[in-house]
Amino acid sequence: MPDDRPYSPGLEGVLAGETSLSLVDGANGRLTYRGYRIGDLVERGTYPAVANLLWTDDWDPGAHLSTGPIPDPVMAILRGLPATARPMDALRTAVSAWGAAQGTSYPPTVEQARALTAFSPSALAAFARLREGREPVEPDPSLDLVQGFLYQLKGTRSDAATARALDAYFIVGAEHGFNASTFTARVVTSTNSDLASAVAAAIGTMKGPLHGGAPSEVVDQLARMGSVDRAEAWLRDALDRHERLMGFGHRVYRAYDPRAAALRKVAEGMEHPPDWLELATQVEDMALRLLAERHPDRPLKTNVEYYAAPVLMGVGLAPDLFPATFSLARHAGWTAHALEQAASNRLIRPDVRYVGPPERDLPR
Amino acid sequence: MPDDRPYSPGLEGVLAGETSLSLVDGANGRLTYRGYRIGDLVERGTYPAVANLLWTDDWDPGAHLSTGPIPDPVMAILRGLPATARPMDALRTAVSAWGAAQGTSYPPTVEQARALTAFSPSALAAFARLREGREPVEPDPSLDLVQGFLYQLKGTRSDAATARALDAYFIVGAEHGFNASTFTARVVTSTNSDLASAVAAAIGTMKGPLHGGAPSEVVDQLARMGSVDRAEAWLRDALDRHERLMGFGHRVYRAYDPRAAALRKVAEGMEHPPDWLELATQVEDMALRLLAERHPDRPLKTNVEYYAAPVLMGVGLAPDLFPATFSLARHAGWTAHALEQAASNRLIRPDVRYVGPPERDLPR
Repeated sequence: MPDDRPYSPGLEGVLAGETSLSLVDGANGRLTYRGYRIGDLVERGTYPAVANLLWTDDWDPGAHLSTGPIPDPVMAILRGLPATARPMDALRTAVSAWGAAQGTSYPPTVEQARALTAFSPSALAAFARLREGREPVEPDPSLDLVQGFLYQLKGTRSDAATARALDAYFIVGAEHGFNASTFTARVVTSTNSDLASAVAAAIGTMKGPLHGGAPSEVVDQLARMGSVDRAEAWLRDALDRHERLMGFGHRVYRAYDPRAAALRKVAEGMEHPPDWLELATQVEDMALRLLAERHPDRPLKTNVEYYAAPVLMGVGLAPDLFPATFSLARHAGWTAHALEQAASNRLIRPDVRYVGPPERDLPR
Repeated sequence: MPDDRPYSPGLEGVLAGETSLSLVDGANGRLTYRGYRIGDLVERGTYPAVANLLWTDDWDPGAHLSTGPIPDPVMAILRGLPATARPMDALRTAVSAWGAAQGTSYPPTVEQARALTAFSPSALAAFARLREGREPVEPDPSLDLVQGFLYQLKGTRSDAATARALDAYFIVGAEHGFNASTFTARVVTSTNSDLASAVAAAIGTMKGPLHGGAPSEVVDQLARMGSVDRAEAWLRDALDRHERLMGFGHRVYRAYDPRAAALRKVAEGMEHPPDWLELATQVEDMALRLLAERHPDRPLKTNVEYYAAPVLMGVGLAPDLFPATFSLARHAGWTAHALEQAASNRLIRPDVRYVGPPERDLPR
């Protein structure tokens, strides 16, 4: 019996649900969270305000959220992880253990979303210190989440410009429609499972390089150029060899990625921009010019990774922490999607086309 | 701009991929794994042979798989979990920690599938003992997986009939098409993430009662009837009060669930069937007769939970271990689907319809 139901491998272009959280308009290079332009949110908001907007639909620019405590059993678990564990594996395990310790259950609440988003930066910072043989740093509730994360990572306060650059990165990373990890979080929630299960599943999904990307490659590329005066020759050579320039081109965006634009603006507005951002902005202008010369018909514009990477490097994060830091930022979106899914829930469960052998007898 | 792409909330009836692993034919009450009827597999196979069939497409009735070792860091993590943790949360955390300790990466391999399927019963048994203040039992590599699981749970060998009943349960629970947890495992794998991420996500999905069900309610129902001679009056009363009979009716199966049929057959073939199975089979016949009288037009047949519950109870599992034990059985299917997804991979990533506010300015 042939199966003539609609076949959509990969589900590309299939609308699997509805959202009020963000609009990704790739053709026009627009991204809004609850209607507000990403550029405005970066300019006038903070990550706690943006997370609060996503959770509650309320714009409160003074909303505060600090990093959260690590429950004792979870700290024991972080201490139990081998130092060689990948940070994404450590973060996924920490979130799972947090859910086990809290006994979180369906439906997800704003309070749970807030607590989990606050917990994870503390957990990642603790793991990053423990693997180097250093003791974790207690959260400081007076600090906003991003400054608090840096403090727990380094043991010292970061200057305001550094924290501001990373906060901007957290804002642009907070939410982006039905990417694979967010979709996973909604599928998990749709079975009436709990928020920690949804976020642990989303971290495991983002771990895949087809989703989480490889932002550290942009850093490698800039490091290989070394300086502005060598950059143009390096770029021309790379294009002659038909190498891919990291940080340009995107599956959805045909125009300039609005998240890259927002991050660049933050960089340019700094009183004393660090060397790495100077290099990045000048190399970007050159690369866009050369790409337009070589491929006048192809829309190869700057993507968010191009600026994410130097920001993450600039604030002093080890490159192997980049994907997990992206996951910290995306906690706001994942948890907001879990809340939205639960608010008008319906099990997400596609079917599958059977292409295996016909019914047969077991061999004797 | 209205979005006129196909809208399929819940993705019901959308074919999101292809599989050779199983055919679920609800209309005719048929289930095959790689073409072999589930009844034949239960009658002539073992869980290791069925798992091997799903992974390799090779029918080897003598295939052996014992429970696996718990890496030291993972045992430390199991010891760190609070005794009050839910078994599904503990199992999800253990699988995540196993992935962190092993450093598993894409693509998944049959060797990884085997190792993870062997690890999880040891982890669940260890947690079940630790929460009662007892020491974990070392795996015995001479025992097959299900007998080994029971041994590590209880510290003693189970009789052959008990192990056989649970092995049959593991076979019928091993695989069932694109249910929500299996679909999640494939989405995770589709980003090129690793097998432990996929299985941890699947466990988190199965935790939701809309998917994992509530098999312990069947046990409660049988316990309330107490004995065969009181059962008919109890059933008539329940139906008069329009109560739902647990263990009857299924989303997909309109005919008798072939998994229930296979489990019943194992029960009836036992030389000395335990009391609980005698009660279950006799109550089933009564219930089917009464349901047909009351609802001649509705196809309310026995589902797999009806027999799963008494089997799980009969082998001595605490009711709060039922969902996690279902997850152990489903490891074969989840990992086989991850292998199948990776063999011809394509990112699974649907789109979403935006229904939020139009672009607007941030309030001043």
